[in-house]
Amino acid sequence: MINQNKVKLPLFDTAKKLEQSARKEQLAFIKTLTASEAAEILTYLENETQFEVLMALDLFFAKQILAHYALDDSLDLLTHLSPTKEEKLFTRIDENAARDIRRFLLFNKKTAGRLITNHVLTFSKEEKVLEVICAIRQTDKKFDTLSYLYVLAENGDLIGVLSIQELLVAEDSEALSEIMLTNMVTITPEADRAEVVLKLKDYNLSALPVVDGQSFLGIITFDDVMDMMEEEQSEDVQRMGGASPLDKPYLKTSVWLIYRKRIFWLLLLFVAEAYTGTVLAHYEETLTQVIALTFFIPLLIGTGGNTGTQVTTTLIRAIALGEVRLRDALKVLKKEVTVGFLLGISLALFALGRSVILGVGINIAAVVAIAAFCIVIWSSIIAALLPLILKKLSLDPAVVSGPFITTFVDGTGLIIYFTVAKLLLDIA
Amino acid sequence: MINQNKVKLPLFDTAKKLEQSARKEQLAFIKTLTASEAAEILTYLENETQFEVLMALDLFFAKQILAHYALDDSLDLLTHLSPTKEEKLFTRIDENAARDIRRFLLFNKKTAGRLITNHVLTFSKEEKVLEVICAIRQTDKKFDTLSYLYVLAENGDLIGVLSIQELLVAEDSEALSEIMLTNMVTITPEADRAEVVLKLKDYNLSALPVVDGQSFLGIITFDDVMDMMEEEQSEDVQRMGGASPLDKPYLKTSVWLIYRKRIFWLLLLFVAEAYTGTVLAHYEETLTQVIALTFFIPLLIGTGGNTGTQVTTTLIRAIALGEVRLRDALKVLKKEVTVGFLLGISLALFALGRSVILGVGINIAAVVAIAAFCIVIWSSIIAALLPLILKKLSLDPAVVSGPFITTFVDGTGLIIYFTVAKLLLDIA
Repeated sequence: MINQNKVKLPLFDTAKKLEQSARKEQLAFIKTLTASEAAEILTYLENETQFEVLMALDLFFAKQILAHYALDDSLDLLTHLSPTKEEKLFTRIDENAARDIRRFLLFNKKTAGRLITNHVLTFSKEEKVLEVICAIRQTDKKFDTLSYLYVLAENGDLIGVLSIQELLVAEDSEALSEIMLTNMVTITPEADRAEVVLKLKDYNLSALPVVDGQSFLGIITFDDVMDMMEEEQSEDVQRMGGASPLDKPYLKTSVWLIYRKRIFWLLLLFVAEAYTGTVLAHYEETLTQVIALTFFIPLLIGTGGNTGTQVTTTLIRAIALGEVRLRDALKVLKKEVTVGFLLGISLALFALGRSVILGVGINIAAVVAIAAFCIVIWSSIIAALLPLILKKLSLDPAVVSGPFITTFVDGTGLIIYFTVAKLLLDIA
Repeated sequence: MINQNKVKLPLFDTAKKLEQSARKEQLAFIKTLTASEAAEILTYLENETQFEVLMALDLFFAKQILAHYALDDSLDLLTHLSPTKEEKLFTRIDENAARDIRRFLLFNKKTAGRLITNHVLTFSKEEKVLEVICAIRQTDKKFDTLSYLYVLAENGDLIGVLSIQELLVAEDSEALSEIMLTNMVTITPEADRAEVVLKLKDYNLSALPVVDGQSFLGIITFDDVMDMMEEEQSEDVQRMGGASPLDKPYLKTSVWLIYRKRIFWLLLLFVAEAYTGTVLAHYEETLTQVIALTFFIPLLIGTGGNTGTQVTTTLIRAIALGEVRLRDALKVLKKEVTVGFLLGISLALFALGRSVILGVGINIAAVVAIAAFCIVIWSSIIAALLPLILKKLSLDPAVVSGPFITTFVDGTGLIIYFTVAKLLLDIA
């Protein structure tokens, strides 16, 4: 819920202090408030705190408070609780509200349906401007947005929308049907959250109506979208770093939980990387003959990994923003191979220089330079294609960034290196 | 500017088509519009397109259009143009507007001052509710927000704020001073953009007043903040991938520009990684005696890099969200060392298993396992401290993620590996 309708700004500050108080003090403070005030302040607290407080209060007051929760606040809280806690909380939610909430909890966690709220201004198209203004002025309800008014048909279909300014500047006697906009931007409850962000942003809306067919279900407000953008960003960044995202603030997350979030990916990468050992064992002969080849292993595979990481991060982002689609695959490949060619030449020159400085002889230096060039191009190709392939398979392209591309390029890079070495050095 | 005041939703769609048209068609279309309509649609186009079109139109019409640009739209456009183009565009901006714009362009690119806009409803505290409602109803101006009204003193100081709903539900004869909120959330024009995001989000506001001391300068609206959040996220992700962020959509960025954005970091990492060659050359004797040690080089340094990347991405995010501060350094270190201990044991067991499978003998297997354990702990420590140290030095912690931590851990990991090997295998 947006509190723009009731500008009580220091609420967040009070909530912040409350969050850090002991449970006993939290309860004592909440009990001094009306149910409506308590609901407003509770929604600013962390989900676990909200749950604990609501379960600790007496049943009657807790029910009253939860009756004042906006739909989006209830959905947000329940979405973040464990199934057991979810069911416990439902025992304290009024039957009608519970039915509404359960209906939208049926939608997938990452969809528009989970962000919906429904305290909005709705009118019928025959109503006159002055009547509507008077109606708004006499209400004592709180709304999730006052920026837009929604015009509904008798069967609940959304037939028009108008902004509060359009209402206010219109003539008293005009009917809403004369001033409303009928060519609306809407979203379905099944739509992905990313689509919600794009629509709000692209059309500069502070609230987006949700419809099932034509039927008006509610709206999604910008504040929930901003929270969600931040949540998504956190998850993306952590996934790119090769770990499952943490759900709670870092300092409040236990060592054991952090361990569990990290060990899976770490072991997966370990197992994936383990084949580099097989590759190197395969070239044992070559290594024994020219031990100096070893010196450049970390440098070459590191460079391959860095090149690949640059490419995937750029592409993952471009895909997320809708700038790059599957049909652009060839364009992307062409672009990355060309860039890879330029980068490969530059790095080959540096590799040559580095080898000469290390005094390994011109033959090995040539091997290192050529291998550097080939590895850079190879990892550009792989890194250009992998995110698009994952997208095609409806998987999140973010999982192949950083650690994954590095791991993949490590072993294949070694094969390139030793193949070049065997060809040029004429060894076993 | 938010178009909530005039819900013309398909504007974005028209703009999208226009963006893809030839310049000639763009100009022909713009010429059919009024200056106000043209301004509204132009702001949806890419900055370069806006500039080209505005320079191609005749001077008089271009001036009229730019006079209809909201302050934030002008600032956004000019912020994204090169200095030469900026000065060219200024020749088409009316003197008064230009003075306003130049004033805010003085603020750093990443500050609140660059996001400001000033078409807002301002009133004096003596005005009565009914007068204010009538005034709003009679205006034909477009506002950047209608969600809040700002109450100013005669000297221009901000003394109160109220929401449109608070205005509408108040009694006709009440003065604004009786219903306005005086305990406001504000921001200074010098404040960092990250602070703007936090304030809007934390206090659930759709617009944030900007003040210099008490003096009211304008507001920052949620739509600009959402655009900015996305821009920042793009930059962060790309920086974490070890490349300078692209300013334009990927497919529109030239190969040469992408090359330039990437080569600097790639070479820097290459040079940094090059010392691994020195480390390995130093242990040439050891390697020659036990060639099998080579097999585990990519696996061990890869695992160290992955562990470090997990830690830094988590911390960079926690620092960005304000969850972790400098004073938490010891807590963070303790936590990461403990997690690193658990991860180290797990990975050491896997390393032992892998070595045995590769058939390198129990001695080398023990070396690999112990080295894996030490490297994981070592890279946890480094990765826990580096982001905090950068923060302390007022640098962006995001630069040490992924590629950088990997590079740093590679060489130091090798030293750990060979030290363990020499101690356990009793070799030179």
